[in-house]
Amino acid sequence: MATIQDIANRLGISASTVSKGLNGANDISEQLRQTVLETAVEMGYTPRQMRTKGIRKLCVFIENMSYQNADQFGYDIILGFKQAAYPARCDVNVMPVTPEFQALEKYDTYMLKNGYAGAFLVGFALQDPWMEQLATTTIPTTLFDNYIRKNPNVSYIGTDSYEGIDDAIEHLIALGHKKIAMFSGSAHSMITEQRRLAYIESMASHNLEVNEKWMPYGYYVAAAAKDHVAELLSLGATAIVCGNDLLASGVLDECKGLGYKVPEDVSIIGFDDIPLSAKLDPPLTTVRQDRIELGKCGFYTLSSTINHVSVSKNLLRPQLILRESTGPVRK
Amino acid sequence: MATIQDIANRLGISASTVSKGLNGANDISEQLRQTVLETAVEMGYTPRQMRTKGIRKLCVFIENMSYQNADQFGYDIILGFKQAAYPARCDVNVMPVTPEFQALEKYDTYMLKNGYAGAFLVGFALQDPWMEQLATTTIPTTLFDNYIRKNPNVSYIGTDSYEGIDDAIEHLIALGHKKIAMFSGSAHSMITEQRRLAYIESMASHNLEVNEKWMPYGYYVAAAAKDHVAELLSLGATAIVCGNDLLASGVLDECKGLGYKVPEDVSIIGFDDIPLSAKLDPPLTTVRQDRIELGKCGFYTLSSTINHVSVSKNLLRPQLILRESTGPVRK
Repeated sequence: MATIQDIANRLGISASTVSKGLNGANDISEQLRQTVLETAVEMGYTPRQMRTKGIRKLCVFIENMSYQNADQFGYDIILGFKQAAYPARCDVNVMPVTPEFQALEKYDTYMLKNGYAGAFLVGFALQDPWMEQLATTTIPTTLFDNYIRKNPNVSYIGTDSYEGIDDAIEHLIALGHKKIAMFSGSAHSMITEQRRLAYIESMASHNLEVNEKWMPYGYYVAAAAKDHVAELLSLGATAIVCGNDLLASGVLDECKGLGYKVPEDVSIIGFDDIPLSAKLDPPLTTVRQDRIELGKCGFYTLSSTINHVSVSKNLLRPQLILRESTGPVRK
Repeated sequence: MATIQDIANRLGISASTVSKGLNGANDISEQLRQTVLETAVEMGYTPRQMRTKGIRKLCVFIENMSYQNADQFGYDIILGFKQAAYPARCDVNVMPVTPEFQALEKYDTYMLKNGYAGAFLVGFALQDPWMEQLATTTIPTTLFDNYIRKNPNVSYIGTDSYEGIDDAIEHLIALGHKKIAMFSGSAHSMITEQRRLAYIESMASHNLEVNEKWMPYGYYVAAAAKDHVAELLSLGATAIVCGNDLLASGVLDECKGLGYKVPEDVSIIGFDDIPLSAKLDPPLTTVRQDRIELGKCGFYTLSSTINHVSVSKNLLRPQLILRESTGPVRK
C-alpha cells in the first residue's frame, strides 16, 4: 500500500502537506487538497478514517469490460468513481461479475448481505439476470449506459450522444462534407440506437439527406467493417461517422485496403477516444467520453439516489478530439 | 433570525441535540442530523460557520416565478437548493432579476464582481439577454428547464418529460382510454416541445393513433382552453393530457362549461402538481415534479460543474399523482 511519503514524492511536496490534504486542514488550498486526495486514491492509499467505522460501503460491479490497466476502458471510470467517493467518506469495492454469478445470487440479497448502501453497475448487458431485477430493486443503484424505466431507486449516467454526434457532423460540414454516412454497432443496444437517432436528427437539422442505406449496422468488432464500407463508398460517402473507435479502426483499415486514402478520400470519426485511437495511422478524430468524469458522475448520481433525489438520467458533455483522420472533402 | 431553541421547539428535541446536528457531532444519527440541517435552513437559521470565512458563495437568480410563499412554484426549489448547499458549506443568495437588469449588467461581470463561484438560474426565458451570454460563459452555471449547447460550464436540470407523459398515458390506457389528446403550452418553449414529443413517442409505443388535430398549442394561461377543448371533444377525445396544471384547470372549467362531467365523460391530467391542483373540483390527477428534489439536484449539478464534471443534462424522475380527474373511459 502506498504511504504518505510516496504521495509526497509523486507530487513533489512535503509529507506534512500531504497529511494536511488528507486530514482536511484549512491552511492548504482547496485545489491542492483535491490533488492530494485524488493522487492518494490513484496510488491505492487507504486513509485512516476509511479503516475505522462510520464509512458508507459502495460496490462497483463490472462486466464485459477490462479495467486492470490504465489503457483499458474501465480503468479511469473506476478511478474517477473512487476519487469522488473518498472525500465523501465512502469505501468502494470493485467486483467483476458474470451472468452465471448473477443467476446464482439475487441482486438485492447480495447487496444487503454485504452491507452495501448502493452500487454502480458498469458494462452490463440487457439480457443479464440482474437487469430484470433492477426494475423493482429497493437498493440505490446507478447504471453506466443502461436505463431502467420508472424505478426511483435506479439512475442512469452516460455521455450525451446527441451532442457528440452533432459535434462530429458540424466538424465535417465545416470541412465541406455533405455525404456523411453512419456506421453503427450492434442493433438492439441502447447506445447504438441513441447514436443512430442522434445522427438522423443532426443531419436533418443541417438539411442533409439521410436514408437507411447510409446507416448500416455492424457489430462491435472491427471486422464488421468489411461487409459495409465498400458499399458506403460506392454510394459516394465522403465521410463515415462510426458508433465507436473500434468500428472506426475497422473502417480505416478497410478504406486503406480498398485503396482509399484517409483523410484525402474519406474522413473517419470515432466515438469514445479509447487509447488506441491516438495510435492509429492516421490518428483518429473522435468524440471523447471523459472516463474520469464518468466515474465521478457515477458517484455523484449514486449519492443523489441514496439521498432520495431520484435521478432518471445524468448525461455528461462529450468533447470532439481533432486528429488526422478528418480533412477537407475531396474535390 | 431563527435561534437554535426555535429549531429545537419545532422538532421537539433539545437545544443541545440541535447544536450537535449543526456542528456535525458523531453521537447523533445521520438521519437526525440531516433533519436538523434541513429544518435550520427552512427556518432561516444562519449557522456560525457561514458567518465566517471559508464559505463558497452561490447565487440563485430567479425570473418569471414567485417564490416568497410556500404555495408558490419557486419556493420549494429554492428551499431544496439551500438544504443541499448548507451541509456543503455554501452560502446562497437569492436574487430576482428582470430582462432590464440583465441588459444593464453582463452576466460574467456581475458574477465576478460579487465573488460568486457559480449560479443556478430558474425561470429564465429564451430571449433573455443573459441566455445568449451563457453560450460562452466561463462561470459554472446550472439552468432549470433551459439548455445551452456545447458549453461545458453550463448544465441543465429538469424533470424527465418523457417518463412523466408516458406514466400519464399508461394510466389512461389502463382505464380503457384510446382517444387521448394533448393540450400543450406555448410553441417555441423547450419544455412544451419536449412534452409534445414525449406524447407522440408514448402514443406510438402503445400503438395508439396520433395526429396534429389532437395536439393543439395553447398559451400558458388557463383561458387558452376556450379555443380548443370543444374541438378535441367533438373529435371524440375521452382524455386530455395537458402541458401543465394551469392549462389543465382551464380545460377542466371548459369541459364543465360545455356540460361534460369530469371524469365520467372526460379524464384530464396535468403536469407539475402545483398546490392548486389538489384544490380543483375534482382534484387533478397530475405528473408531479418534486420541487425540493429539483432544488437539491440544482445544487448537486452545479457542484459537479464547479468541479469540472461537465454535466449536459440531469433529469429527475417524475411521479404520477392519482386524484379524481381521471376515471374509466365512458361506454
